[in-house]
Amino acid sequence: MSITRHQSDARLSRAVVNNGTVYIAGTTADTRSASSKGQTEEILGKIDALLKVSGTNKSRLLSAVVYVADMRVKPGMDEAWMAWIDPKNPPARATVETRLGTPDTLVEIMVIAAQ
Amino acid sequence: MSITRHQSDARLSRAVVNNGTVYIAGTTADTRSASSKGQTEEILGKIDALLKVSGTNKSRLLSAVVYVADMRVKPGMDEAWMAWIDPKNPPARATVETRLGTPDTLVEIMVIAAQ
Amino acid sequence: MSITRHQSDARLSRAVVNNGTVYIAGTTADTRSASSKGQTEEILGKIDALLKVSGTNKSRLLSAVVYVADMRVKPGMDEAWMAWIDPKNPPARATVETRLGTPDTLVEIMVIAAQ
Repeated sequence: MSITRHQSDARLSRAVVNNGTVYIAGTTADTRSASSKGQTEEILGKIDALLKVSGTNKSRLLSAVVYVADMRVKPGMDEAWMAWIDPKNPPARATVETRLGTPDTLVEIMVIAAQ
Repeated sequence: MSITRHQSDARLSRAVVNNGTVYIAGTTADTRSASSKGQTEEILGKIDALLKVSGTNKSRLLSAVVYVADMRVKPGMDEAWMAWIDPKNPPARATVETRLGTPDTLVEIMVIAAQ
Repeated sequence: MSITRHQSDARLSRAVVNNGTVYIAGTTADTRSASSKGQTEEILGKIDALLKVSGTNKSRLLSAVVYVADMRVKPGMDEAWMAWIDPKNPPARATVETRLGTPDTLVEIMVIAAQ
């Protein structure tokens, strides 16, 4: 079964497709001065683009892990999340608090989708 | 390939099935006054129910991520875990320490299973 | 669809194969006195062996979650990671900071691969 990789660098691919399943890398915002809501909006825009290049879209999300730098930013993340997801097709999701790549990275999201 | 979602709300589905694979959302206990063992027992009961509605059971677990609020509660979690799993069919598993949704949430478990 | 499990104990299997997808358990180093680079090299050697017994190899990685005990050890982990991965076939990856099983466990890696 062949594997298709998108936006690969020396370390990782931003999206990997195999057997009808799409694995998206942990995605963060570039605008680190933004609020958790703003960072999440940017992340979800990036995920939209990665899903599209992988031949699918947000209505076909299977699961998501949301890493937040502090549980206090979860409401802002959730506001952007709920405005974004297809309300008839939400994925399985877990949200946990971890430190992220830089101190001002407030949110990182990793999803699995079906093609 | 069609996707089936169970127990969906505005934010997430508690179980999502696609192509014979079942993704269960991060699951926590409602009885937050319980010990890590008690919380884990409640979580695993919820996972049993979600696996059942998804057409499978704990003997077909593929992988699990266990988030504990403090590594010191891992022994209590493991006691409930080992009493629960099908001893001939344990999943791949990782256990890491993260802060969870509320300060008294001691354990959260996210699993993938085969139908 | 049958499930194959490798190196199972009372708690978990180190590798689980179903429907052409391989789930590897969270893998840590035994030599806890090693640097993050050294620990990562040991981990990746173990993952090579688990992929092999599962009928695949590192060129077929789909996704990885890297847990580091402190973001300051990420450069050492990345050095070993970039020396190891098939440069034409990197997986989707997220790296987050969590406490791990013991205080001197610096890195834990969990991967999914295609057979």
